[in-house]
Amino acid sequence: MTQTSSSTAPARGPVDHDVRDQIVAAATEHFSRYGYSKTTVSDLAKAIGFSKAYIYKFFESKQAIGEMICANCLAEIEADVCQAVSEATLPPDKLRRIFKVITEASLRLFFQDRKLFEIAASAATEDWQAVVEYDARMRQLLLDVLQEGRQSGDFERKTPLDETVTSIHLVMRPFRNPLLLQHSMEGSEEAPALLASLVLRSLSP
Amino acid sequence: MTQTSSSTAPARGPVDHDVRDQIVAAATEHFSRYGYSKTTVSDLAKAIGFSKAYIYKFFESKQAIGEMICANCLAEIEADVCQAVSEATLPPDKLRRIFKVITEASLRLFFQDRKLFEIAASAATEDWQAVVEYDARMRQLLLDVLQEGRQSGDFERKTPLDETVTSIHLVMRPFRNPLLLQHSMEGSEEAPALLASLVLRSLSP
Repeated sequence: MTQTSSSTAPARGPVDHDVRDQIVAAATEHFSRYGYSKTTVSDLAKAIGFSKAYIYKFFESKQAIGEMICANCLAEIEADVCQAVSEATLPPDKLRRIFKVITEASLRLFFQDRKLFEIAASAATEDWQAVVEYDARMRQLLLDVLQEGRQSGDFERKTPLDETVTSIHLVMRPFRNPLLLQHSMEGSEEAPALLASLVLRSLSP
Repeated sequence: MTQTSSSTAPARGPVDHDVRDQIVAAATEHFSRYGYSKTTVSDLAKAIGFSKAYIYKFFESKQAIGEMICANCLAEIEADVCQAVSEATLPPDKLRRIFKVITEASLRLFFQDRKLFEIAASAATEDWQAVVEYDARMRQLLLDVLQEGRQSGDFERKTPLDETVTSIHLVMRPFRNPLLLQHSMEGSEEAPALLASLVLRSLSP
């Protein structure tokens, strides 16, 4: 039912790629000011100064543009998290940073900087491809840190690894998913650190 | 700003008390069929067959009725949870039951049986007194189980008790709070058990 990024018209060359980027940048700006659901492709075309037909040459629907914006937004969060993890040496420290930075970056991207909440909420409600892939990559990052910690002897090895990953991924969900995060703002200062400590206690060998 | 149950007109005798209960029962039925936000006290009066003025003799506002319904609903969840806890002997088992039953009872009361989601959502968004008190009692129940487990040697005693309670209370939040629960339906079969196991690992001495 839902469109995936892969179903958008593929870029046909460096120039086409530039135009696509230009449309996405303008649309990001426009949506974050005027909202996603209320804006039509016609409104967007008018605001960017392109014809509607020209935009449709690059994106088959408004959702295809929304998906690209969403994917970019999630990529920014992911980059922040990966950067924070790479700056730590010990697996417990890496885990703490995942909790902290995923919350901070999500709050910033979804609610403050760009006000992209509306797109992020649609994406999360309808399980857009970009969200599914992002969740899978966040899960993989967690798995890597857990495996590293099991090898270094920092984390216990009795619980099946798959169960450990799934349950920690669940604990993080209210701070990763924008639909839950909107109702978790109040505790978003202390909660991630408290939860990271609880998770680390659950991992002690 | 928000009304609290204590601000409603107090019952003045056994008969008044009966009438209050009667209004609340009829309003519960009415709201769960027609919704809370769209119904006015006039609609309600018409449906129950009382005059609007008569209802106002017992409740100073629609929210006062909503608060009573909400308090009753939360009391049912709490009774289910307390019952399940009382049927267990070992503290770890009690903790597992809290996770399981709070999710099941909340899903049933907020979304299935009575469709009281709309009232529960208003209550959670606006921090109605009934919600604040319910949260405090659930926290206290958790504290009691933790203390019992620390005394029996089932749970570790190094982490400050207050931190342990706060963090476990946080882990449960997506299954206790209707605003988060509506977005946690998908995993509501397995998630509570997985999270209870993680929490129990974090409590191991």
